[in-house]
Amino acid sequence: MQTIKIGMLGIGNIGKGTYQTLEINREKITQATGLDLEITKILNRHPEIDRGIDIPREKYVTDIKEILEDPEISIVVELIGGIEPATTFMADALRAGKHVVTANKAAIAKNGQMLTELAQKQQRILRFEASVAGGIPILNAITSALISNEFSSVQGILNGTTNYILTKMTEEGASYEDVLKDAQKKGFAEADPTADVEGIDAANKLSILISLLFGKGVGPDEIPTRGISNVSSEDIAFAEKFGYKIKLLASATSKDGQLTCDVEPSLVPQDHPLANVNNEYNAVYVTGNAVDNLMFYGKGAGPLPTGSAVMGDIIGVARKIEKDAAYDLMSHLRYDADLEFIGEGCNPYYIRLQTYDRPGILGQITSTFGVYGISIKTMMQQALNSEKTALDVLIQNQSVASVDNVLRVLNS
Amino acid sequence: MQTIKIGMLGIGNIGKGTYQTLEINREKITQATGLDLEITKILNRHPEIDRGIDIPREKYVTDIKEILEDPEISIVVELIGGIEPATTFMADALRAGKHVVTANKAAIAKNGQMLTELAQKQQRILRFEASVAGGIPILNAITSALISNEFSSVQGILNGTTNYILTKMTEEGASYEDVLKDAQKKGFAEADPTADVEGIDAANKLSILISLLFGKGVGPDEIPTRGISNVSSEDIAFAEKFGYKIKLLASATSKDGQLTCDVEPSLVPQDHPLANVNNEYNAVYVTGNAVDNLMFYGKGAGPLPTGSAVMGDIIGVARKIEKDAAYDLMSHLRYDADLEFIGEGCNPYYIRLQTYDRPGILGQITSTFGVYGISIKTMMQQALNSEKTALDVLIQNQSVASVDNVLRVLNS
Repeated sequence: MQTIKIGMLGIGNIGKGTYQTLEINREKITQATGLDLEITKILNRHPEIDRGIDIPREKYVTDIKEILEDPEISIVVELIGGIEPATTFMADALRAGKHVVTANKAAIAKNGQMLTELAQKQQRILRFEASVAGGIPILNAITSALISNEFSSVQGILNGTTNYILTKMTEEGASYEDVLKDAQKKGFAEADPTADVEGIDAANKLSILISLLFGKGVGPDEIPTRGISNVSSEDIAFAEKFGYKIKLLASATSKDGQLTCDVEPSLVPQDHPLANVNNEYNAVYVTGNAVDNLMFYGKGAGPLPTGSAVMGDIIGVARKIEKDAAYDLMSHLRYDADLEFIGEGCNPYYIRLQTYDRPGILGQITSTFGVYGISIKTMMQQALNSEKTALDVLIQNQSVASVDNVLRVLNS
Repeated sequence: MQTIKIGMLGIGNIGKGTYQTLEINREKITQATGLDLEITKILNRHPEIDRGIDIPREKYVTDIKEILEDPEISIVVELIGGIEPATTFMADALRAGKHVVTANKAAIAKNGQMLTELAQKQQRILRFEASVAGGIPILNAITSALISNEFSSVQGILNGTTNYILTKMTEEGASYEDVLKDAQKKGFAEADPTADVEGIDAANKLSILISLLFGKGVGPDEIPTRGISNVSSEDIAFAEKFGYKIKLLASATSKDGQLTCDVEPSLVPQDHPLANVNNEYNAVYVTGNAVDNLMFYGKGAGPLPTGSAVMGDIIGVARKIEKDAAYDLMSHLRYDADLEFIGEGCNPYYIRLQTYDRPGILGQITSTFGVYGISIKTMMQQALNSEKTALDVLIQNQSVASVDNVLRVLNS
């Protein structure tokens, strides 16, 4: 098994998440793909800073040339962020014959066309799954499994900070300013939150989605963009009363040869799948002419979710380099994992009973549960009429494979 | 550009959906992938039946040998359904050196191990994205973009018929029996609904997911399975009162070396993403150790959504056959589509105003809207106190790029 060597640019949060994802799941990755992956060099211009992660110091280099001129490195992973020097580094890497993986939405939104053309000219791969919606594999899906569709629209909750703020405003009835301050204290919002709260981050991501879904170049600056700083707690309360939740939506529609798009706070009907996308979660809702409506939901940021997307791209590239890699992963249904099959799991269950309202009946019921070793978590009683009463019983984690009239309770 | 020739087995609903997906999107597929795909032969044992689709009759063959022995055909697509003769046909196709794509959950759940081993021995590809959750590209995602994750659990709404019935019972307060009858009349449930309503269909799909997510062989018959026929409208009403919706969940968990799984009606908290999966929609909620929680939502059945998944697999296989196909699709950001860029679209918007409750004020406001060419769809007035009143104004589709204090309304 050949080792595929990777050079990583930057060791911030996403760099650390990528490194950790590979370390903790190395065995799974090798078993599933037949690939041995190794991050051999990391560009770190301040090796004296403690990054809070255990990485052998000899991997650190301070000059990108040590990566670009290393003939053993075939994949360069750009995780510096920002437009420059990231764009120049990626272009140099492609010119040096390296494949490039990046998580950089700003650089791809701004310079994706140049980088794409350069990659094609160099016959090298450029991948950027993590640049849109973090761990959610939306770019991979629309460029592979869904590729046979003509797409007509996309609506995305693409920014975790604003979604966190709107969720807290909804749950706590608090003002935008108060929630923002709290989010900054907890590290969910940056000291200068402009790029997030004014929708600029979402516009970058929408620009990339528009290019992949509709094949049209629309720069982030061209997208009409309105942030959430004007959304008040009164807006949220009114929306709720009329059956809506407020979300910052990034939307684009292709219809009759015309493309429209915008980023703006929007009322989403409470029964729409986008309405239950809360806190720091992201979601992308796309419509294709064969597949119809689809939604992808997950964590749009964070070291490990983003690391998952970066590693997915690295493995995708590595499998094209290493032809002996598992021929087709979907074929690899496996049946032999070292896992004991238990059958039904232990879950909380809900049981509804009707009984006559007579003294002692509750005690009889609870003792009967006890005889069968079933612990009751809560029990609620509600009179149905003068004679009968309804009991709602929530039982503790239990296996109930042989019982019919029970309903499992999914933990939230 | 070489033509990749495909033989299709069966021309029922999914066969027609696959054929149509290729026909309506041929230009997009060729442009995006550099591939020319052609379904050249279709096994149709009753060519005399009118299938309601315009297919040249010379494509029909009545003997599978005409497909298996055709050296020009490199991909066989099995869309007959059922365990036999589908399994034998797929095995014969692999032995004849063809790659195989199928939508057949029953055959893969039962014979996936044999077919996988045969495909590996023959160095041919076997793909079955459409066998689980129809158009939702969940298998592709977990075997490619998410491959670096160790998965710990999955919860799926994998059967559209039962989800449709539970949704209607919830919305209409109707009984299971009445809704089932209505669903059968409308074609959403089969005359013999057993496989759907007793959870057997969901167990087949869960068996496939368990193999791909956890690498463990668990036959559908081994999965503890309880259907929805015992769910009453009272259960649903009680669940709603306590903040839950009832869904038929197919679940599996890997923890401490033990695998548990089951299919059963479950209480899902109303703010959980799975709670808003309604009608015939499916969803798969998975948790990986890097990516954390992810949900994929979409149509789990229907000719075109399923056709989208089948075509995705066909294109994936074809790109491995035809090395000149677009080198890497994600690189193919495009910027030159023949689409006019309009900017912001026309949407319904919501405006909230506060005003003094004086005679004539409503008229003044509505005329002012009129002066600016804004049509009002509905307006609601609500007294705030003895002096002030709040107006909630929903305006018709409009571009409002220059206005700040408005909220777009997403249509449900």
